Parts: sequence; C-alpha cells; structure tokens
Amino acid sequence: RRGRPTLWLQQGTAQAINAGDSMFTLAHLAMLELEKTVSLSTALECAWLLHQSCVRLTRGQYLDLAFEQCQSVSLEDYWNMIGGKTASLLGTCAQLGALVSGADGAVGQELYQFGFNLGLAFQVQDDLLGIWGDPAVTGKSVASDLMAHKKTLPVLYGLQQGGAFPARWQATNITEDEATGLARLLDQAGARQYAEDEAARLTAQALDSLERAVPGCELLQEFAGRLLQRQK
Amino acid sequence: RRGRPTLWLQQGTAQAINAGDSMFTLAHLAMLELEKTVSLSTALECAWLLHQSCVRLTRGQYLDLAFEQCQSVSLEDYWNMIGGKTASLLGTCAQLGALVSGADGAVGQELYQFGFNLGLAFQVQDDLLGIWGDPAVTGKSVASDLMAHKKTLPVLYGLQQGGAFPARWQATNITEDEATGLARLLDQAGARQYAEDEAARLTAQALDSLERAVPGCELLQEFAGRLLQRQK
Repeated sequence: RRGRPTLWLQQGTAQAINAGDSMFTLAHLAMLELEKTVSLSTALECAWLLHQSCVRLTRGQYLDLAFEQCQSVSLEDYWNMIGGKTASLLGTCAQLGALVSGADGAVGQELYQFGFNLGLAFQVQDDLLGIWGDPAVTGKSVASDLMAHKKTLPVLYGLQQGGAFPARWQATNITEDEATGLARLLDQAGARQYAEDEAARLTAQALDSLERAVPGCELLQEFAGRLLQRQK
Repeated sequence: RRGRPTLWLQQGTAQAINAGDSMFTLAHLAMLELEKTVSLSTALECAWLLHQSCVRLTRGQYLDLAFEQCQSVSLEDYWNMIGGKTASLLGTCAQLGALVSGADGAVGQELYQFGFNLGLAFQVQDDLLGIWGDPAVTGKSVASDLMAHKKTLPVLYGLQQGGAFPARWQATNITEDEATGLARLLDQAGARQYAEDEAARLTAQALDSLERAVPGCELLQEFAGRLLQRQK
C-alpha cells in the first residue's frame, strides 16, 4: 500500500479493523480447504501451525505496544518483539509450504528457520528504510520513524552508544529538520552500519537453512536477496 | 463485564484489540484440539463452521457500522445485522455441541436454529435493556442507547410509527433528561411492547427447535428462559 491511502483513512478505523478481521478469517478458511488436496491430518496440522503463529504475532504486537511506554528497551527485547511480530509469520509460511508439498518435518523446520531469519532481516531493513529511505520511493516523510519516536534497531543501538544522540532523541517533539540531524548522528554512531550488518548476517543464515532444506533453490535465493535490496 | 471497567479503558485501545485478537486465536486453537477426542473429519468440520460463523460476524459488524451513516434502516436490515453479529455465533455454538457429541447433521441444524433464534431474542433483550434497563443493574446510564443514537429495534419501530418520536430522536445531541422523555415516547408508541413480543416469539421458536432436536432438554430450556428474563 506504500504511496496509496490506507483503508482506515478511507473508511474509518472501525470498518478497517473489521475488514482486517474478515480477511484474517478468510485466510484460515482457505487453509482449512487444504483438506481437499492433502490428508486430513496435514490439513489440521497446517491450521494448527498458522494459529500458533498468530498467537506469537499478538505476543510480538503486545511487546511493541508495551515498548512505547518503556524508558529502556534492550536489543534482546527488540529481537523477541520482531521475532513474534514479523518473523514468525514468514517462518510459518515457509514451513506450511514444506508440509503441503509432502516434505518431512525436518525440512519443514529448516524452512521455518529460513523464513524466520528472513523475516528478522526484513524488519531490520524496514527499520533502515524508516530512517534512511528515500521519501520519494517509500511514500513516507524523511526519517519518519525518528519523528514517531519508534524504538527501531538503529535507535536502540544508538541509545546504547551514548554521545549526542540519546539526549536529542528523547526530546518530546522531533521536527522534520531535527529528524534529519538525528539520522546523521545515528549514522556517525555506527547504527546504520550495525543494522545493515545484522540484516546481511540474518539473510546469510536464512540462505544456509534454505540450502539445507532445498539445495540449489534459486527462486527462493533470489527472493531473499531482493528483500535485502528493496528500497521501499 | 457490566459494571466493571473495560480493558480498553485500563490498557488503551491498541492493547485491548490485540488481547482480543489473541483470545480469538486461542479459541480456534482450542477448537483444533478437538482432534484428540473426535474424528479428524469432525474436528475439521467444527473448525470450518466456527470460521464461517466468524465471517458472518464481520458481515454483521459491517452492517452495524454502515447503519450509523444511514438515514433509514429497515427492520429487515436490522434482522440481517443482528443475525450476523449476534445470532450466528450462538447458533454455531449449539451446532458444534451437537457435532462433537456425535449427533447427526439434522440435529445439528435444529440446534443451530435454536441458538440462532435465541441469539436474536438475546439481542432484542439487549436493545430493551439499553433503553429501559435499570442503570443500577446494567452499570450504564439511563436510556444510554438513545443518547448514543443507536438504531436498535425499539428505535427503528418508533421511527416507522411517526408521531413525536422521530423528530426529537433525530436532534443532534440527546441529553440524559431528553433520553428519559424519548424512552417514554417510544413506550407510548408501542415500541417496547413490540420488542418484548418479538423476543418472546423468537424464544418460543428457539424452544420449538430445541424440542425437535433434543426432546425434554430441561437444562437448555431453562437457559433460554433465563436469557429472556435477564436484567443486565
């Protein structure tokens, strides 16, 4: 939806949430239709795994919301949060593909790890774009995540390093001009490099899992590589 | 929760919605655990029926939200809305009980009708309490649904009857004093009697279905009777 109006802006929050609830349920119904093409026990296992993943999503979302009220959030807290909120779902998607195609449980586990680490890398990349992304491409304002006081990976890293960044970031209102300055400070403190290295490391881990699960799978290798290169 | 603070008041809207999403998913996981006690195909059918019911819930909620923007809502619209928003879930609950206990499909259908009509009666009773309920018992203010401009069954009936009610109800802000007067007008127009008759008629229909499905089931007969007598 980047660059296009969101549903809640067009129809209001209540209708948008309800539409989301409806689509969520339709996704689960689609999953249950697997019984037409795979064994009943596989269909049930897939439904179970998807719901389990949804519980982890709400746990991640809980942490994300709770972090807004917290003075200090550790990097460990951050990884737990995005593990639940983003990575778990990608992991489950890959795992479900394995199960539906009849692969054994070990291959499913490896593909879960592929998707999970790719999901972590995806979120880190999202954090990078929220600060250093090109507004003309992302459809958001410059350093929008800094203005919104989001506790993203570069910010948490920057807060740990001390120096000029922490005091200026904790100011109540951050204007667009200040956000640009803060992004520069973060860059100088090594936060951008750190996040880029983490995204690359996680993508490499993901590709290792993929290679163990499905050797020479160029399509998914390319997919993983593109996620890391994306600009929006 | 009547008379106690809601979660969103305590924790904010975002955390409350997320907690609801989590509980929703846990309910579906509990349903999938049926595979331990019934056949795989019954477990899948139950999961399917519950999700189908959830789609109808979102359709009812869509109508409810859409009605807020509508000048005129017919009684037929109203029954469609509460059929999706309230009655479908009660119907499915009763049907699931039948399936899990090994009853055949026809008994499941009758119990669906039992729950569905009971759900309609429940919602009509809710509408009555929202206007004529005792604030000391309901924990809400007098005629709170009138102040909130809710298009409940008594209101829709009253709007159809013409007279003094429609013009006064359409005023933008309704104070607590005015709401009390409006409730009296509705009563005089026969709206309260109409809604009470509908609740009684639907409960009788529900009991007929119950008798066909499970003859002499005193526990569920008593349950249905209590819903109609409830004061909050």
